[in-house]
Amino acid sequence: MKLLEQLCKIHAPSGNEQNMAEFLLSYINEHKSSWKQQPEVLRGDAFQDCILLVFGTPRSAIFAHMDSIGFTVRYGRQLVKIGGPAIENGYRLTGEDAQGKIECSLVYNEEAEELQYIYEREIERGTELVFKCDFRETDETVQSCNLDNRLGVWSALQVAETLENGIIAFSSWEEHGGGSVSYLSRYIHEQYGVKQALVSDITWVTEGVLAGKGVAISMRDSLIPRRAYVQRIIQIAKASGISFQLEVEGAGGSDAKELQRSDYPWDWCFIGAPEDNVHTPHEIVHKKDIESMVALYKVLMEKL
Amino acid sequence: MKLLEQLCKIHAPSGNEQNMAEFLLSYINEHKSSWKQQPEVLRGDAFQDCILLVFGTPRSAIFAHMDSIGFTVRYGRQLVKIGGPAIENGYRLTGEDAQGKIECSLVYNEEAEELQYIYEREIERGTELVFKCDFRETDETVQSCNLDNRLGVWSALQVAETLENGIIAFSSWEEHGGGSVSYLSRYIHEQYGVKQALVSDITWVTEGVLAGKGVAISMRDSLIPRRAYVQRIIQIAKASGISFQLEVEGAGGSDAKELQRSDYPWDWCFIGAPEDNVHTPHEIVHKKDIESMVALYKVLMEKL
Amino acid sequence: MKLLEQLCKIHAPSGNEQNMAEFLLSYINEHKSSWKQQPEVLRGDAFQDCILLVFGTPRSAIFAHMDSIGFTVRYGRQLVKIGGPAIENGYRLTGEDAQGKIECSLVYNEEAEELQYIYEREIERGTELVFKCDFRETDETVQSCNLDNRLGVWSALQVAETLENGIIAFSSWEEHGGGSVSYLSRYIHEQYGVKQALVSDITWVTEGVLAGKGVAISMRDSLIPRRAYVQRIIQIAKASGISFQLEVEGAGGSDAKELQRSDYPWDWCFIGAPEDNVHTPHEIVHKKDIESMVALYKVLMEKL
Repeated sequence: MKLLEQLCKIHAPSGNEQNMAEFLLSYINEHKSSWKQQPEVLRGDAFQDCILLVFGTPRSAIFAHMDSIGFTVRYGRQLVKIGGPAIENGYRLTGEDAQGKIECSLVYNEEAEELQYIYEREIERGTELVFKCDFRETDETVQSCNLDNRLGVWSALQVAETLENGIIAFSSWEEHGGGSVSYLSRYIHEQYGVKQALVSDITWVTEGVLAGKGVAISMRDSLIPRRAYVQRIIQIAKASGISFQLEVEGAGGSDAKELQRSDYPWDWCFIGAPEDNVHTPHEIVHKKDIESMVALYKVLMEKL
Repeated sequence: MKLLEQLCKIHAPSGNEQNMAEFLLSYINEHKSSWKQQPEVLRGDAFQDCILLVFGTPRSAIFAHMDSIGFTVRYGRQLVKIGGPAIENGYRLTGEDAQGKIECSLVYNEEAEELQYIYEREIERGTELVFKCDFRETDETVQSCNLDNRLGVWSALQVAETLENGIIAFSSWEEHGGGSVSYLSRYIHEQYGVKQALVSDITWVTEGVLAGKGVAISMRDSLIPRRAYVQRIIQIAKASGISFQLEVEGAGGSDAKELQRSDYPWDWCFIGAPEDNVHTPHEIVHKKDIESMVALYKVLMEKL
Repeated sequence: MKLLEQLCKIHAPSGNEQNMAEFLLSYINEHKSSWKQQPEVLRGDAFQDCILLVFGTPRSAIFAHMDSIGFTVRYGRQLVKIGGPAIENGYRLTGEDAQGKIECSLVYNEEAEELQYIYEREIERGTELVFKCDFRETDETVQSCNLDNRLGVWSALQVAETLENGIIAFSSWEEHGGGSVSYLSRYIHEQYGVKQALVSDITWVTEGVLAGKGVAISMRDSLIPRRAYVQRIIQIAKASGISFQLEVEGAGGSDAKELQRSDYPWDWCFIGAPEDNVHTPHEIVHKKDIESMVALYKVLMEKL
C-alpha cells in the first residue's frame, strides 16, 4: 500500500489537482511498460488538469476523481469549506503560502459562528488547507484522510495493469460540484463512441453496506442510474463469484451527476469500497473490500 | 380513455422506463398507419429507453416524460423516494422482485423517522414500488395515479394522429432530476435544427388555475422561459379560441430544466392540464382541460 | 456616467432581455466606428436575445449579463421573485401591462405570508415589475438599482473601445439560474477555440473587500475556478500596478456556473467592482473600483 500512502499525502483539493496529475503522469510513465497493453496518455490544455488513459478499443470508461475536500482561507482567521469536510476542533491541517509551509489546527468558533484556523501567523487569503495525512495500515484495514478518492484512483491504477480495452479518466472537482466530467465524457463519447461508465469512488459503511463484505454496487444514490445497465452489472458480478454488496441510498452523489446530465446517452454505475469516518482524517476501509473492488473492475471492463 | 388507463397502469418509475417504451412502440406500430403522416420512429442505444417520432419537416418538438414517481426498497423495510411522491399511511404500492409480484402498504414510521412498507415478507433490496392504479372516470373527470405524466403522453399520442411536421420526444427521469432531455434535445437540434419546444406535462390546480377552465400555459415556474416565445404562444392561443389559463408560479420544474441549461438556444413553454391531488394515487383532471390541451397542441404544432 | 444611467433604466428582467439587446445594438452601431478594432456583431435566432462581439483573433471572452432581478405578478396581488431581490416595504416598482405603464409599491403581507404589490388596479397576470431607477452620482460613487450588472455591461463597453483581440458576450438569465452561457460558450469554443473567460459582474462589499480599494478578483465563490488560471490572472494584475483586492467567498455564483459545468474545458475568473446594498434599489459602487475594473480588463484581455 506504499502507492496508496503516497497518493493520500498529495495536496490536491478541488480546483487544484495539478500535483495529483503530475504524480500520476510520472507513475504511469514509469510503470506502463510492464502493463499488458500500452495506453495512449491524453493530457494538456484540452483536459485542464485531467488525464485520460485509452487502452485498445474501448467500450467502457472508469472515472476516478483526483481531488480532495479541504478548506480555503478567507479573511482574518476564517475558513470556507472545499466540498464537505467533517468538522472537529483540533483536526490538523496542512498547506502552503508564499511565506512557507503551514501546519495548523481547525476550530469552530461558536461565538463568531465561523470555521477558523489556529496558527502562529495570519495565512494568506485564498490559501488551501487539507487534512494532515496520518496513514495507518493493519492486516485488515487502511486508514487515512483522502481514501476518498485516492483509493478509487489507486484501484484504477491496479486495473490499468491488465486492461486491454477501456478508458481510465482521472477527473477534477468531484468534491465541489463537478466541472470536468462533462467535457471528459463528451470527448470520450465523440472520439471513441463509448457510453458505458463505471464510477471508481468510495462510498459509506451503513446498516446495509458493511465493512469487509465486499465492494458496493450502488443501485442508486441521490440520482438513479438506468436500471437495465445496473442489472447487467449485477449479473456479471454474480457470475464472477467476487464478493459484493448492493447499495441503495437516497442521498450522495459522484462524478455520475455530470454523466446523468450529459448531452450524450451515458449509462453509469457507482462501484466502490465502503469506508467509515467519511470525510474525516480517519477514513477507514477494509482490505477485503479493496481487493474485491479491483477484482470486480477487472471483470467488468472485460465483460461489459 | 381506455388507452389512458392502460398507460397509467404501466410500471415505469424514473430510471426504468422500459415498459413504457415497449408499450408505446407497439401502440405506435399498430396505429401509425391510420395517422395523417407516417413518422420516423427513432429508438435504440443512442436514445437509452426514450423514443423520438419525427413527422415531416419539424419546426417544433413536444417533450412528454414517460416516467413516474415511486419508491426504492432500501435495507430492511425502509423505502427511499423516487421523485416526490405524497406520503400517506396506507397508500397501496405494487412492484415485483425475484420472488414474485408484490402488493404492499406504505407507512411512515414516526419512531424510526423512516418511510417503510408493510408486507408479509422482506422485499429485495433495490426493488421499485409505485402507487397501485385505481383508474376512475366520470362524465367530467379522470382520476388515477400517474396522470402526471401518462396524460401528457396520451395527449401527445392524440396530437400524433394529425401531426404533419414536428417531433414528439418521449423522455425519461423527469420526476427524478432529469437525464434524457439533454441528449434528446442535442440530437434534435443537431439533426433537424429545431429549437422550439413544448413541454407536454401536467400542472397544479391552484387559486389561479382552476379545474375545467382550460389547459394551462405556464408563464414561469421555478425557471423563466424566454418571454418573447411565451408571448407568441399566448397570441396563437388567443387567436385559436381554445380555452386556456395563464399560470405563474415560483416553484416546480419539468423537462424544460434541461432545455434551459442546454448547449443549444432552445425556447420552451410548459403547457398542460392542471390536476388536483398532485403526486398521490388520486390525481384528478377535468376532461375539458384534457380536450383543450390536445386542441391547443394541434394548433401550436401547426402555427409555431 | 450618462451611459451607465441609461443602462440602469432599461426594463430587462431575466427572460426578457430584449430591451437591453436593442439598446446595446444601437449603441454599438453608433459607436463602433470610433473603436480601435471593428468587431463582428453576432446576434439573431441562434443567440436568442444575446449578443456576441468578436474582435480580431480572440483568445479570451468577457461575459457580462444583461438581465436584472425583479418580480412577476402572480394571482391577485401576489408577486413571485425573479432572481433574489431584497425585500422592503415601500420599494417602488415599475412595469407595463396591456392597460398601460405601472408604478406601484412592494409590500410583504405578513398575514398572508405573501409578497404583494400595492396599486390602484389589478395588474395583469405574468407582468414583470422591476425596481424603479433613482440614479445618483457623487464625486466618489454611483448609486442605483441594477448596477448589478449594468455596470458590468458598461465596463465591457469601455473595454470594447480599445480591444484588439477578444470576445464580449452579453448574456441572459444570470439572475435566475442561467440559460444562455451554455450555448454561447459552446459556440465560442467551437468557432474560435477560446476557453479563457472573465466574468464581468458586480460583487459584494464585505469585511475583506472594501469600497474604494480596487476591483475584486474572486478566488472562489460557491464554485472554485481552476487555481492555475486564477494565479495567472493575479500575477498579471500584480505586474500591472492596478489596484485590486482578492475575494474569497463560500457562497454566490455567476455566469461562471455554466462555464464550470460546460462540455468544454473553460477556465473562468470572476472580476468585478464590489457594491454595497446588493440587490436593492440603492446599490452603490465606488468610482475608483469602476476605474480599476475597466483598467484591469484592458490589461487582461491583452496579456492572457
